[in-house]
Amino acid sequence: MNINKHVSLNLDVRGLGQSATLAINDRCKQLQREGGTIYRLGLGQSPFPVPQPVVESLKNHAHEKEYFPAKGHRDLREAVAEFHRRKDGVEARPQDVLIGPGSKELMFLLQLSYYGELIVPTPCWVSYVPQATILGRKVNLIHTKPEDQWMMTAEGLEERCAGEHDEYRPRILVLNYPSNPVGSSYSADELKALAEVARKYEVILLSDEIYGQLHHKGSHISIARYYPEGTIISSGLSKWCGAGGWRLGTFTFPPDFDWLLETMAAVASETYTSVSAPIQHAAVTAFRGGTRIERYLWHARRILAALGGQCVRMFAETGIRVHPPVGAFYLFLDFSPLVVKMAGRGIGDSATLCDRLLEETGVAILPGSAFERPSDELTARMAYVDFDGVRALTASETIPLDQPLPEDFTELWCHKVIKATQIIIDWVTD
Amino acid sequence: MNINKHVSLNLDVRGLGQSATLAINDRCKQLQREGGTIYRLGLGQSPFPVPQPVVESLKNHAHEKEYFPAKGHRDLREAVAEFHRRKDGVEARPQDVLIGPGSKELMFLLQLSYYGELIVPTPCWVSYVPQATILGRKVNLIHTKPEDQWMMTAEGLEERCAGEHDEYRPRILVLNYPSNPVGSSYSADELKALAEVARKYEVILLSDEIYGQLHHKGSHISIARYYPEGTIISSGLSKWCGAGGWRLGTFTFPPDFDWLLETMAAVASETYTSVSAPIQHAAVTAFRGGTRIERYLWHARRILAALGGQCVRMFAETGIRVHPPVGAFYLFLDFSPLVVKMAGRGIGDSATLCDRLLEETGVAILPGSAFERPSDELTARMAYVDFDGVRALTASETIPLDQPLPEDFTELWCHKVIKATQIIIDWVTD
Repeated sequence: MNINKHVSLNLDVRGLGQSATLAINDRCKQLQREGGTIYRLGLGQSPFPVPQPVVESLKNHAHEKEYFPAKGHRDLREAVAEFHRRKDGVEARPQDVLIGPGSKELMFLLQLSYYGELIVPTPCWVSYVPQATILGRKVNLIHTKPEDQWMMTAEGLEERCAGEHDEYRPRILVLNYPSNPVGSSYSADELKALAEVARKYEVILLSDEIYGQLHHKGSHISIARYYPEGTIISSGLSKWCGAGGWRLGTFTFPPDFDWLLETMAAVASETYTSVSAPIQHAAVTAFRGGTRIERYLWHARRILAALGGQCVRMFAETGIRVHPPVGAFYLFLDFSPLVVKMAGRGIGDSATLCDRLLEETGVAILPGSAFERPSDELTARMAYVDFDGVRALTASETIPLDQPLPEDFTELWCHKVIKATQIIIDWVTD
Repeated sequence: MNINKHVSLNLDVRGLGQSATLAINDRCKQLQREGGTIYRLGLGQSPFPVPQPVVESLKNHAHEKEYFPAKGHRDLREAVAEFHRRKDGVEARPQDVLIGPGSKELMFLLQLSYYGELIVPTPCWVSYVPQATILGRKVNLIHTKPEDQWMMTAEGLEERCAGEHDEYRPRILVLNYPSNPVGSSYSADELKALAEVARKYEVILLSDEIYGQLHHKGSHISIARYYPEGTIISSGLSKWCGAGGWRLGTFTFPPDFDWLLETMAAVASETYTSVSAPIQHAAVTAFRGGTRIERYLWHARRILAALGGQCVRMFAETGIRVHPPVGAFYLFLDFSPLVVKMAGRGIGDSATLCDRLLEETGVAILPGSAFERPSDELTARMAYVDFDGVRALTASETIPLDQPLPEDFTELWCHKVIKATQIIIDWVTD
């Protein structure tokens, strides 16, 4: 029997590749095993360790074996609601919280369950569109502009909604801030303006705030403050808590969204069942927070701010355009001013640009096309995370939080990122 | 804004309830909080603790935060392959193993990815059909007969395949043994006969062997021994390792099934990403096994065999038909001989039977309809798991493994199950 002749795959998934971020991670590991020096600025993984109280909590709950309800552990739902009340000043309630094995899975359940249009401003996170493809759906993209810091504007949303013959069609708009892949965020006024348009057209917002706690100044604002009745806040442990590999994400719904939450939970109960119990117990500790976790966050923010700023200063005058980040750990590099030079090297699209950069220098970054930008636009995301977060945190802890980090800090403790930045600059100016 | 008016749900999931097993679990917890004495024979959760070496391993890896590849941790894939080579005598290779957050999720990915017919003998596990519904698909059921111990026969499969105009249509047949909800299993000859028909019609087998290690005599046989080129083995930590709430399942594919494995892994990378890293590390310890884990398994098997046997003996002469279990921790109770008596109480279907039993006695079991049996057939699954597995194991450990448990063991250490059995008997004979 040659069962291969029976290859029988759903056409919506046939030929589907690995998620771009996971693929670059696997490829980098492979290249490292082959002995090359690789600068891993591809996968957006927090460089920092899971805070010690959270690790301790996992140890203390290592024997827990019960199935939790599909919606999540009661104490965790309470802790997440309290987290958003405390951090974001919104009126979240425990019964409005849904726990999933990563916010990515929750977004998939959302796309599966909701029947309506999904609007995604680009550059966007890499998985929205593939998720829609898997489900045989379509995502409507809005390409933002570099002069808007690649962020969504209220005017853009108004234009999109008003331009339809069907103004009140069911719609979800995805907002992500601080932004992956840009590192930008919205001001309070921008959020208010967006909220106003959303309210006018009754657009549901999926507000992906997974980098909220990594706003470099600790001043993240949730749009749920201005549009509580229509905003779903997405968060999780992966970024601010350094626990990407643990797989725990959260959705916090507005009141009266039980129709959506209950449906997603029902699908959860028939698929992943519930999130790993020991992980949920540990997450209670994480979301409850406390002094040690707050200190960890302030140190992480200070390091990321210093490093992001340093990279941006290095890119000045190189022809690579980039916006100073205000949160997260990404820079969205725009090589467009160098388009002629790149064309001379046979580079006409972002995928080739990143392939060639990796091949020729060992620096891994992800092409703009992975973030749904036009393939011939020479953009790429750099995740400035390839440094030892434990050592960097330890070094930062010796310096009082009310002082800036010394000038040589990034060179000393985030050396590989600085070096990779220089390599990119040398490569383009070569 | 009254966003409720916008309820916009995919019709394939609208009105979907919680998984039957999770729903009964939640309901029992609720009734217990309200103060009732509830006999929890609904959810099929292992009563035994996670073996200590596995718990220790989770503690030791509590700080691990990396994203693993979507297919799973390399060491774990190796350990799972080795587990099946050692335990089942099949030629499994690490590259053929896929790790997921529960085998339920992997089955969902299989249904999503595979394009073909899914044949499921009933009574079957509760989630196959709801998963198909979520995906807008259809499952083809084959109702087995009580005289076949509710198990699939080779003749039944031959009949189904030969009866089609399209003999070689792409098909997956789901086999589950030891069986949930019956507790029966297949003999070597039965497996060989099934394998022969599957080979003849080139049917892929999804062999759900999650209870394999809970065969009461430790003599589980995988059909992959007789049909290696077409059998996917499904397993996981939930049952034999007592770690249902941890959420880790495994699929082990035949060679040349990379077309399916790669596609499922690609979907995984866009949904749950990968299984929680600390859990995967601990699972390496579990699948590698060793003396302590083997001893744990032998004690667990001895207890389950004694308890299952005891319950079956109690049901004799009561009018409730039941097959002596050879594995797992389920009895499939057939109240059909009492159909007239039940009708006299206004009970004409399995759902009402279970509702009334719970209401009137506090004993929770699941109706046959949840296992896709005809709703008016008076059958139900009893999971004989409501006892303290830690105490029962500790008591068993004082008795040499080559001796049988004393007669009063189940009464002493599994008292609630014995009591619940008596309550069911009293309820029907009342």
